[in-house]
Amino acid sequence: MELLKERIRRDGIVRGNDVLKVDSFLNHQMDVKLFEEIGKEFARRFDGCGVNKILTIEASGIGIACVVAQSFGCPVVFAKKSKTKNIAGEVYTTRVVSFTHGNVSEVIVSKDFLGPEDRVLLIDDFLANGAALEGLIDIVHQAGATLVGAGIVVEKAFQPGGDRIRAKGVRVESLARVASMSEEDGVVFCD
Amino acid sequence: MELLKERIRRDGIVRGNDVLKVDSFLNHQMDVKLFEEIGKEFARRFDGCGVNKILTIEASGIGIACVVAQSFGCPVVFAKKSKTKNIAGEVYTTRVVSFTHGNVSEVIVSKDFLGPEDRVLLIDDFLANGAALEGLIDIVHQAGATLVGAGIVVEKAFQPGGDRIRAKGVRVESLARVASMSEEDGVVFCD
Repeated sequence: MELLKERIRRDGIVRGNDVLKVDSFLNHQMDVKLFEEIGKEFARRFDGCGVNKILTIEASGIGIACVVAQSFGCPVVFAKKSKTKNIAGEVYTTRVVSFTHGNVSEVIVSKDFLGPEDRVLLIDDFLANGAALEGLIDIVHQAGATLVGAGIVVEKAFQPGGDRIRAKGVRVESLARVASMSEEDGVVFCD
Repeated sequence: MELLKERIRRDGIVRGNDVLKVDSFLNHQMDVKLFEEIGKEFARRFDGCGVNKILTIEASGIGIACVVAQSFGCPVVFAKKSKTKNIAGEVYTTRVVSFTHGNVSEVIVSKDFLGPEDRVLLIDDFLANGAALEGLIDIVHQAGATLVGAGIVVEKAFQPGGDRIRAKGVRVESLARVASMSEEDGVVFCD
C-alpha cells in the first residue's frame, strides 16, 4: 500500500536495526483518515471472504480494527490482557509473550462473542515475532470459528513471525513489509 | 441519546447495584455502527468548539475515540498505561487509580503529540469515580492545551466522578446518565 509506505518513509523513525517508531500516526497518535484508507485496502484484499467479525488485541490494534470494521460492516472483538471483574462467565484464554514489553500476558475473549458461526479477520498494527497473532489464532480455533486471515499494517519481514504463520496455512496480508532498516538508510520495503 | 439508552436497556446486564455490563456492544465486542452515531452526537454537542485533538486512555476508550474522531476530522492520542521501550523521549505522566482493576497505573502521553496549540476533547466509555478522566485532565493541563470538554458514553451518575469534575468547571457531556440500577428493575436513567 503505497500511501502507507510513503507515510512510514516520511514520519517513521528507526532506532537501531529493529525498532520502527510510527507513534505519530499509527499506535500512540492515530491518524484516523489513514485508518480509513487502510480499511478500504483490507476490504479490497478480503473481498468475498464473508468476514463477519474482526478480532484484535489490546491496546494499539483496537483503533485500527474499529475503523477497518466500518469497511466490512461487522463488529470488532478485542482480546483483553487482564481479567477484570466486569467479565463474568466463560472465556477463551491464551498466553501471549510480548517482546516489546518483556512479559507474558494471559489474554481472554468472552465465549459470548466468538463461536462457530463466525468468519474472523484478525487485525493488528504490527507483526514481528508473531506471538500476539498466534494467540489470536489459538482463540479462533478454540471458538470453532473460521479463520479468514490476518490483516497487518506493518510487518517486520526480517523477523520470523510472518513466515511461521504463513507456513501454517494462514493467509496474512501485510500492507507494508519491511525488509530491513537502519538509522543510516531508513526503511527498506520488500517490494 | 435515545438510541444508546435503548441499546443499554436491551443488551446491558446489571450485576448487583453498581456493575453494568455493556460488553456485547461497547467495551469488549464493539458495535462500530453505534460508535458512528455516538460520534455524530458528540460532534453535534461540541460543534463550533474547534476540537483538533481527541485524547483517550487505553484500552476500551480507543475504539470509540477513533470512530468519534472521524466526525471531528482530527487525530486521536491515547494515554498508555505502561512504558514500552518504543516510547523514547519526554512524556507527560500521571497516576490513575482503577477501581475496576483494583490497581494504580502510571499513564503517559508523549510530549510530541499534545501541546499548547491543541483544543482537546476527552473521550471515554465510562465515567464513574472519575479517576481516568481526572488523569487525562491533568495531562491536558501539563501540556498547556485547551480543554474543550469530555464526551462520555455512559455515566454512572450515582457515583461521584461526574459531579466532582463538573464542579471544577469542566464541560462533561454524557450520552447516557444512569441514575440507579438493580438486577430486579434494570437501569434507570437520569432523564
